[in-house]
Amino acid sequence: MTSIENEYQVTGMTCGHCEAAVRQEVDQIPGVESIRVSAQAGTLIVNSSTEIDDAQVVAAVEEAGYTAQRVR
Amino acid sequence: MTSIENEYQVTGMTCGHCEAAVRQEVDQIPGVESIRVSAQAGTLIVNSSTEIDDAQVVAAVEEAGYTAQRVR
Repeated sequence: MTSIENEYQVTGMTCGHCEAAVRQEVDQIPGVESIRVSAQAGTLIVNSSTEIDDAQVVAAVEEAGYTAQRVR
Repeated sequence: MTSIENEYQVTGMTCGHCEAAVRQEVDQIPGVESIRVSAQAGTLIVNSSTEIDDAQVVAAVEEAGYTAQRVR
């Protein structure tokens, strides 16, 4: 089974609490298998079993209080 | 009724989540009436009905993942 990997640039995260807040929201999107998030790098990498709508990821990050943009 | 006010310098806080983490721990100390915490200023001001042991405040801040030092 292949996994789809999408990367987003996230602005505004400063610490581990911020990473946890983003992780918690993105983890609620159906199909998400794993999440890597780095406040220092400003990155969010989402692995999923099916293609996820970018708008869902962007909305989840905004729900956590930050802004995201798909980079690849 | 008078309120005792103590101020601490807290290092390591970067955002509102950090402030909330410190607030949550310090709020558990018996006698604490109000708390002002600023990540930007690196300050924690604790108002209490009775004198609180500095070690308790320092320990609470450390529990949240930061370090505190009494300044006044």
